[in-house]
Amino acid sequence: MSTEIPKTQKGVIFYENNGPLEYKDIPVPTPLPNELLIHVLYSGVCHTDLHAWHGDWPLPVKLPLVGGHEGAGVVVGMGSSVKGWKVGDYAGIKWLNGSCMSCEECELSNESNCPEADLSGYTHDGSFQQYATADAVQAAKIPAGADLKNIAPILCAGVTVYKAIKSANLKAGDWLAISGACGGLGSLAIQYGKAMGFRILGIDGGAEKEELFKKLGGEYFIDFTQCKDIIAEVKKATNGGAHGVINVSVSEAAIEASTNYVRSNGTVVLVGLPAGAVCKSNVFNQVVKSTKIVGSYVGNRADTREAIDFFVRGLVKSPIKVVGLSQLASVFDDMQAGKIVGRVVVDTSC
Amino acid sequence: MSTEIPKTQKGVIFYENNGPLEYKDIPVPTPLPNELLIHVLYSGVCHTDLHAWHGDWPLPVKLPLVGGHEGAGVVVGMGSSVKGWKVGDYAGIKWLNGSCMSCEECELSNESNCPEADLSGYTHDGSFQQYATADAVQAAKIPAGADLKNIAPILCAGVTVYKAIKSANLKAGDWLAISGACGGLGSLAIQYGKAMGFRILGIDGGAEKEELFKKLGGEYFIDFTQCKDIIAEVKKATNGGAHGVINVSVSEAAIEASTNYVRSNGTVVLVGLPAGAVCKSNVFNQVVKSTKIVGSYVGNRADTREAIDFFVRGLVKSPIKVVGLSQLASVFDDMQAGKIVGRVVVDTSC
Amino acid sequence: MSTEIPKTQKGVIFYENNGPLEYKDIPVPTPLPNELLIHVLYSGVCHTDLHAWHGDWPLPVKLPLVGGHEGAGVVVGMGSSVKGWKVGDYAGIKWLNGSCMSCEECELSNESNCPEADLSGYTHDGSFQQYATADAVQAAKIPAGADLKNIAPILCAGVTVYKAIKSANLKAGDWLAISGACGGLGSLAIQYGKAMGFRILGIDGGAEKEELFKKLGGEYFIDFTQCKDIIAEVKKATNGGAHGVINVSVSEAAIEASTNYVRSNGTVVLVGLPAGAVCKSNVFNQVVKSTKIVGSYVGNRADTREAIDFFVRGLVKSPIKVVGLSQLASVFDDMQAGKIVGRVVVDTSC
Amino acid sequence: MSTEIPKTQKGVIFYENNGPLEYKDIPVPTPLPNELLIHVLYSGVCHTDLHAWHGDWPLPVKLPLVGGHEGAGVVVGMGSSVKGWKVGDYAGIKWLNGSCMSCEECELSNESNCPEADLSGYTHDGSFQQYATADAVQAAKIPAGADLKNIAPILCAGVTVYKAIKSANLKAGDWLAISGACGGLGSLAIQYGKAMGFRILGIDGGAEKEELFKKLGGEYFIDFTQCKDIIAEVKKATNGGAHGVINVSVSEAAIEASTNYVRSNGTVVLVGLPAGAVCKSNVFNQVVKSTKIVGSYVGNRADTREAIDFFVRGLVKSPIKVVGLSQLASVFDDMQAGKIVGRVVVDTSC
Repeated sequence: MSTEIPKTQKGVIFYENNGPLEYKDIPVPTPLPNELLIHVLYSGVCHTDLHAWHGDWPLPVKLPLVGGHEGAGVVVGMGSSVKGWKVGDYAGIKWLNGSCMSCEECELSNESNCPEADLSGYTHDGSFQQYATADAVQAAKIPAGADLKNIAPILCAGVTVYKAIKSANLKAGDWLAISGACGGLGSLAIQYGKAMGFRILGIDGGAEKEELFKKLGGEYFIDFTQCKDIIAEVKKATNGGAHGVINVSVSEAAIEASTNYVRSNGTVVLVGLPAGAVCKSNVFNQVVKSTKIVGSYVGNRADTREAIDFFVRGLVKSPIKVVGLSQLASVFDDMQAGKIVGRVVVDTSC
Repeated sequence: MSTEIPKTQKGVIFYENNGPLEYKDIPVPTPLPNELLIHVLYSGVCHTDLHAWHGDWPLPVKLPLVGGHEGAGVVVGMGSSVKGWKVGDYAGIKWLNGSCMSCEECELSNESNCPEADLSGYTHDGSFQQYATADAVQAAKIPAGADLKNIAPILCAGVTVYKAIKSANLKAGDWLAISGACGGLGSLAIQYGKAMGFRILGIDGGAEKEELFKKLGGEYFIDFTQCKDIIAEVKKATNGGAHGVINVSVSEAAIEASTNYVRSNGTVVLVGLPAGAVCKSNVFNQVVKSTKIVGSYVGNRADTREAIDFFVRGLVKSPIKVVGLSQLASVFDDMQAGKIVGRVVVDTSC
Repeated sequence: MSTEIPKTQKGVIFYENNGPLEYKDIPVPTPLPNELLIHVLYSGVCHTDLHAWHGDWPLPVKLPLVGGHEGAGVVVGMGSSVKGWKVGDYAGIKWLNGSCMSCEECELSNESNCPEADLSGYTHDGSFQQYATADAVQAAKIPAGADLKNIAPILCAGVTVYKAIKSANLKAGDWLAISGACGGLGSLAIQYGKAMGFRILGIDGGAEKEELFKKLGGEYFIDFTQCKDIIAEVKKATNGGAHGVINVSVSEAAIEASTNYVRSNGTVVLVGLPAGAVCKSNVFNQVVKSTKIVGSYVGNRADTREAIDFFVRGLVKSPIKVVGLSQLASVFDDMQAGKIVGRVVVDTSC
Repeated sequence: MSTEIPKTQKGVIFYENNGPLEYKDIPVPTPLPNELLIHVLYSGVCHTDLHAWHGDWPLPVKLPLVGGHEGAGVVVGMGSSVKGWKVGDYAGIKWLNGSCMSCEECELSNESNCPEADLSGYTHDGSFQQYATADAVQAAKIPAGADLKNIAPILCAGVTVYKAIKSANLKAGDWLAISGACGGLGSLAIQYGKAMGFRILGIDGGAEKEELFKKLGGEYFIDFTQCKDIIAEVKKATNGGAHGVINVSVSEAAIEASTNYVRSNGTVVLVGLPAGAVCKSNVFNQVVKSTKIVGSYVGNRADTREAIDFFVRGLVKSPIKVVGLSQLASVFDDMQAGKIVGRVVVDTSC
């Protein structure tokens, strides 16, 4: 056990949904027997953090709450039944903080589907603080020497798109369409898809987006501000339809379109979490083409290790902007105003 | 080659959609080099035959047309490039009469998804005649000695539900829910599901249906005329939700319900072809539960052989009523009026 | 926590390989934070227990050792970080007592392949005592009211054959050949295979064995004491070769034969652990037929739950003979002499 | 139909195994109703052609025989039941010339495992002639404008290694070991594996080989002439063992080693066809590690299209040396003497 752990720390906490985001001194938590205590150095900021603050999802949040679920740091302590970790290891805090390890979903490594899933920055105080706890089984292993600042967004955004791409069940050489290709998730999806051997078709709006798309390894871009018939163009570009589609865009119309430009026997993946949105699929079309529509949530432990591995090997980069944790409230403002390009990472030291 | 093939035969033909169904003498077709000529003895009558007659699907039909795609009979002739068949073999005419054998779908044995699929009783004269042609690659092999009368409905209804159940990707011991369990397709689905090692939950209306359900091997019945909360009851009965659901019922509300009572990581199968119906799935729910919605069309050659094998082994029975082919128009009337219980099979000899 | 836990208990312990098996008073162990303390009522006796005693496997055993890994009992205590269990639950002790939960294999639910796997009755004191500890994550959940005596052999023998059958990756209606069909493992394999929808072909010697085989649901029996060409007979009976083969027999010649009577694209499963045996496969044959040879070890948590579920539903029965734990040494003698028919279960109370 | 087809042509024919390889005028074959007539411009030369000439495999060859099964050319005629082709299309002649299209294997797109498979240059006159016939269903579709000279070796060598890699069932980021990495097949395997997103470890001998390996995209090279413990080094380099192994080397010892350096739950692929060789696997090791050993034969139609697609996209290159068809006998001499580096392609025009 490390001896340098302080009793209090800086963190951002709110006491009711939509209440003030207070940057202040709060107690350092004590790890349970199965938990790590992680000194969080950096944490990504994700749209989900906004949902937690607003409380607009059908899952209740813990209150008061320290948000954040993309934390990268160093293990400084641990409970007595922890196996496989030592003080000084790099560790990541991800959306799934811990699970029951006892239900059917946990048995099958689908821990994120556990009915008793404990969620960082949602039902468990998260990474918007300097010291946070995480179940040792679920905490992400980060290789020694990795760049903790840049890896932070991989822990949620990266893992999420990587898992979504896996859920499309493609083989190398297949066409992967990304609807909403050039936002934060889409930019990662292009790079993961490319590294996995797929051919990338992206749909987004504007010449600047097209440039970014090509730079990241995309092959065919459709500018929805120009294209008259997206379904026809996808089918033509891919010689019959995309084998898989990742719906990073959460527009209902875009999702419905994807059920039409996916190839026969192909797969449409739902991955965003728009409150209240519905995926509509024409039954006749889906049956005759034998297509699949699958939901993909956050990745499991193996998905996390694999997503990190692609990053560490240099195949995926995440453009970030670093600000102090004390500035989190204004980051939330910018995010709500749609002003964030790429990913913001907070430095917990300031 | 057989020498007893007549020049003309009895068949039922129509010249325009919704036009008269004429039982009359028509020419015996000549097989192409790749085709069998099959003496059809019996043919099942399917709802699809009504759609072909009405022309209300988004695929155009051949006109004039001899309908029918559940024909069981005997090979009496064949073209010069046919391999693997001999005169006297039992053969079945199924929905997929032939395909291009040259596209990606055909390469992967997904011939029913071939863009140039040739469909019996739709784009190719079907089994409502005494002699019909079928591509030798796609014609169903029926074991010698099989009961041709009773096997007829297996060639479409049986194969279709069998393939749908396979599409749910279950393992033995899993719960299979059948929405619309006690109609023609559902009755077969109960038996196939049971023979495949699954636990069957059925949803249908009325005590008579429940009795039939239990008799066919079903385990848990939900009477929708009595149950106040089907989603809750399915979850309770199956300890968390059905692992797979086959939507034989084509009600939009029933389909939407199935997306809610399916278990996390489970699969909802769409298999009926209601014109215009839409499957609606809440995106948040589908993502968080990581469920799949898959379309299942008719089976391929292997599915057909396997579905027939279950029938021949006595594990699946199909309750039929036999009438003469000359009575087909009144069978169509009864079908439209919802008066058909089980499956009607026409005897082409009268 | 229960208050009635004694300080000492009866158990069978040995201090060196092949040393005396002493039935005596030993301390009741104290559970670690992640462990259950289970009052073991019954334990199956398995050939592996002999290997542990002899120390003839390439994995070193703990010494002194209390053997046993098929223990069924009741939870009487637990460590502070245990989730999902309560005192009074029925629990099973199985071969995999616990694992690191931190390596790649554990991440993917392949905990039995964990390099740091902790093994009951091998590296961790097992079920040949009245009170034993087990990692709460790996301990088997046994439904309330289950017959603890009869379920004991399911915890290893049952799970092992069930997992082996799953490893053959068959679909309902396929032929499953069982080489050594009528011994302890084989008898269970017949019943599991039947319940999973497969057609069972068994190979064993003698008319008595054939009778048992048919009684348990087997379809085609080959008596190796009578059959001149087993490979030819399997191919004929199954119309081309078995889709899957489970090698319960550990004879090298029988294993090699199975690589020849398996169907093209079919799977041979290795499941027994004969010290030093080699599986020999002709490369030309295996390539041209594109067959698979796969090793199957003990099942994971999901396999265990599923195997227990088949038992609880009455689809699998295990013929057992119950004797007192104090008689274990003579059970070992009988086992070595090949005198055991079916499975012996020890009652820890006497 | 083209009108310029001559009656006779140049070809290389032999009349008995090991008999003279005669370059002479032979009749141009006439396509059956289901066949294409292909004007072969180039043909690769493969070790299998030597086996056909020697007759040393357990499958009898047609005699007299025109060998060759890597033919690239242009369709100049076709039978009356051919669908999906037109005169002028580029087409490839591959090992599997045609199959029964009627057995279980054909139903499942495993046509190369068809018991009645018709093999180019083995049971059907092959590509060592200017005009050859091929079943239209199996003939390879080559995109217009492709380089026919360089694509020839892809039709067998390329498809074979590509299918073998697919048989290892890896995911992007996994380690693929290639035993015999720098020969003709291995060189292609490195490039396919790399393009599919795998990390490539190669085993071969000598610094020149290492240089080639790195140039083609390999990541970690083991020089068997230097390495003292290949099993240990593979495990160390891959952090636990290769996820998949392709045995291009046909050495029995190398194959056996691969069963030891493959990772738990990983897959060893057998793909070469050494007459008489045996794959030996320690049963205890294979069970405890739950590894798979799978045979991979030539690819099917989809594998062929995909392998060609990687080539056409420029991701795979095949170093060839072109000589006249009239020189085939000396090419066979060089091949037997082990003097061929890379692949020889014959030009049928000289």
